[in-house]
Amino acid sequence: MTGSDKRLPEQGGLLARRSLLKATTVGIAGGFLLPTQAAETVPLWSTHSGSAQSEYGERSAFVQDQRQVQFGNPYGPQAGVSYTPLATLNGSITPNSLHFERHHSGIPAIDPSLHSLTIYGDVKRAVRFSVDDLRAYPLESHCYFLECSGNSYLNTLPRAQDLSVQAIHGLLSGSEWTGVPLRYLLDEAGLDSRARWIVAEGADASGHTRSLPIDLARDKVMVALYQNGEVLRPAQGYPMRLFVPGSEGNVSVKWLHKIKVQQTPAYSREETSKYTDLLKNGKAEMFSFAMQVKSVITSPSGAMVLQRRGIYEVSGLAWSGAGSIRGVEVSADGGQSWVAATLQSQGGDRALTRFRIPWRWQGHGAVLQSRATDSAGNIQPSREMALARYSAAGFYHYNGIQSWAVDPQGVVKNVYI
Amino acid sequence: MTGSDKRLPEQGGLLARRSLLKATTVGIAGGFLLPTQAAETVPLWSTHSGSAQSEYGERSAFVQDQRQVQFGNPYGPQAGVSYTPLATLNGSITPNSLHFERHHSGIPAIDPSLHSLTIYGDVKRAVRFSVDDLRAYPLESHCYFLECSGNSYLNTLPRAQDLSVQAIHGLLSGSEWTGVPLRYLLDEAGLDSRARWIVAEGADASGHTRSLPIDLARDKVMVALYQNGEVLRPAQGYPMRLFVPGSEGNVSVKWLHKIKVQQTPAYSREETSKYTDLLKNGKAEMFSFAMQVKSVITSPSGAMVLQRRGIYEVSGLAWSGAGSIRGVEVSADGGQSWVAATLQSQGGDRALTRFRIPWRWQGHGAVLQSRATDSAGNIQPSREMALARYSAAGFYHYNGIQSWAVDPQGVVKNVYI
Repeated sequence: MTGSDKRLPEQGGLLARRSLLKATTVGIAGGFLLPTQAAETVPLWSTHSGSAQSEYGERSAFVQDQRQVQFGNPYGPQAGVSYTPLATLNGSITPNSLHFERHHSGIPAIDPSLHSLTIYGDVKRAVRFSVDDLRAYPLESHCYFLECSGNSYLNTLPRAQDLSVQAIHGLLSGSEWTGVPLRYLLDEAGLDSRARWIVAEGADASGHTRSLPIDLARDKVMVALYQNGEVLRPAQGYPMRLFVPGSEGNVSVKWLHKIKVQQTPAYSREETSKYTDLLKNGKAEMFSFAMQVKSVITSPSGAMVLQRRGIYEVSGLAWSGAGSIRGVEVSADGGQSWVAATLQSQGGDRALTRFRIPWRWQGHGAVLQSRATDSAGNIQPSREMALARYSAAGFYHYNGIQSWAVDPQGVVKNVYI
Repeated sequence: MTGSDKRLPEQGGLLARRSLLKATTVGIAGGFLLPTQAAETVPLWSTHSGSAQSEYGERSAFVQDQRQVQFGNPYGPQAGVSYTPLATLNGSITPNSLHFERHHSGIPAIDPSLHSLTIYGDVKRAVRFSVDDLRAYPLESHCYFLECSGNSYLNTLPRAQDLSVQAIHGLLSGSEWTGVPLRYLLDEAGLDSRARWIVAEGADASGHTRSLPIDLARDKVMVALYQNGEVLRPAQGYPMRLFVPGSEGNVSVKWLHKIKVQQTPAYSREETSKYTDLLKNGKAEMFSFAMQVKSVITSPSGAMVLQRRGIYEVSGLAWSGAGSIRGVEVSADGGQSWVAATLQSQGGDRALTRFRIPWRWQGHGAVLQSRATDSAGNIQPSREMALARYSAAGFYHYNGIQSWAVDPQGVVKNVYI
């Protein structure tokens, strides 16, 4: 499939941004006009007043991006997921209405005046916090990614090639989260000398429960109250959620209601039968919180069709639970050659980072890939390497390189190479 | 009014975050419980499944923040503004549905397939770009503030004291903007040697038109296609707008349709009769693009009532058209003493920056103020200094320090001191 690409100059058509712009013109513009033509254009919508300003804004009727919803089973539709439409978004923020979801018993409709957070157990004194109480503490705001531990698991299986980036990788979003560092609240309770773990429980019907070691809980963990500027949405834990930066999504317990401090983990259902990682040797990793270094090209991506030859921007997202993103390399020839992409400046610790690189498509077959390196020096593995570690029966924490094949007709498909 | 504060220790009750947290407990928690009480809590909403995941998410029914809408006049309601609810937001991102608006003839409902950007005039060749054309260029994403040049003008006038931060300062928002650097597009057209200005025109019914010097247009200016991750909203220029970082909002022409390159400015209505700054000496500044260094405390702020004595977080926003925010000082005694606030890390060039500082309110009268300094060394002026520069008949570019008075009953009001 990559045969024709190997003969291309410019490493499969990938161009350093500088070399693209050194040319007099990039030549993407749709048309070149006579001066008289240019000035004559009178747009239809300038002939009459538009609609007035409003109290709460909406999208254009021409923009219909939506999450792809998947129900758990016919008897429990509330136990399911929805996937962020990564292909049509850009930048590094996910709008709250399009943030991915994973609910175990649906979204509770919590009245915040009747909700509180209680910290108890191996503490000097049990304490309870209302939402207003929490707002009075010193808050922090940080851009962080959130990824479901099962994100991308479709790529661990033999599959049809017609999957989109949303279907494969859409359990990933990025937001500015604002909340109270959990250590401040633990200090209010006062940890007993026996305290080794916290057990966080949500107020939803599943009573979703996860355990965290005290050291992790006192590190970057927050009780989040705001997402992308506004008060949390119900689907994201309104009025308060735990947020554990860089960790698999399910430990960031939504609708946070109780934190019990104790000597041992809870060994809850969600950390024994679920969310453990079965290894090739039959053993399982428990409490494997951090999501590993990963990236994915969001455009061009699966199910898109390139409509013309010429310059495109290859663009995607990179992230790591071990720190920030140091670099992303892109290949257009299935990994034969790699070129460094441009990173966006606002990427930070455990944040989604947007990468970009210009690419000239000349109508040949090509295989686009991206490979991220994080600040700890971890390099995103090939699919083969990523699969080698875990049992085929497991599907959490998959972070292998994504390959998108472009055929001579411009059709983009998910492939395994 | 500030008499009682002067007797307070801790500089009017303001506390370095470190000193607050050095104490064993902050003591904000609403209650201390017996261990048995703590464990007994069974929330109502855990007794039944919640609602399922969805294609497009909504806010909680308990969250009703909205923009404050102001119509221009009864015969032209589309020529008006709406104000961002700054008091209830946090972090540095404004949700797109709550971004402030200023429309001169309403919001056009543009079909993107019928819309294009034409660059013509003193160029080597006129060029036209569709939305798809623009998406193929190298894009950039940056967090920037956007502020109407008339923001905060209510504080230039003698007013009642019952105004909220939304009413006074709500023509201010912050977003991650993604678009094509304009210089790439100007290079496609090829500038003629006579080219000194660009004149940008929107496709709305007002034909909103502003001129920019070529050097500014080639600097950080972009044609924006995405805001906070998603495709632009109609109220923000869908499908494309000019974005001029740090400049008064009206030069970031929405629904961008034409850019004419020429030797002189257009001297359009919006840069002659409007959006010029009348000075004390009777002359007017034209093309005064950059918004000056400024900050405002968003909480506590006007029309709030403090319900109890004790610790609060004083929090607000700072920004400058001349660069990034280097520091924000906060006073709780009407400017007698100042303490440095904590800045949030994601603040950058021309970005909204969130600042925070703990404050102990002991039930006395107090006057809260903030004062920003930018990376160019500019310091936000007092109200008196800010008013000294401009004619009382003008009301653009006001950046004086905001004073919020807290009375012994906890009522917060806008005051001039």
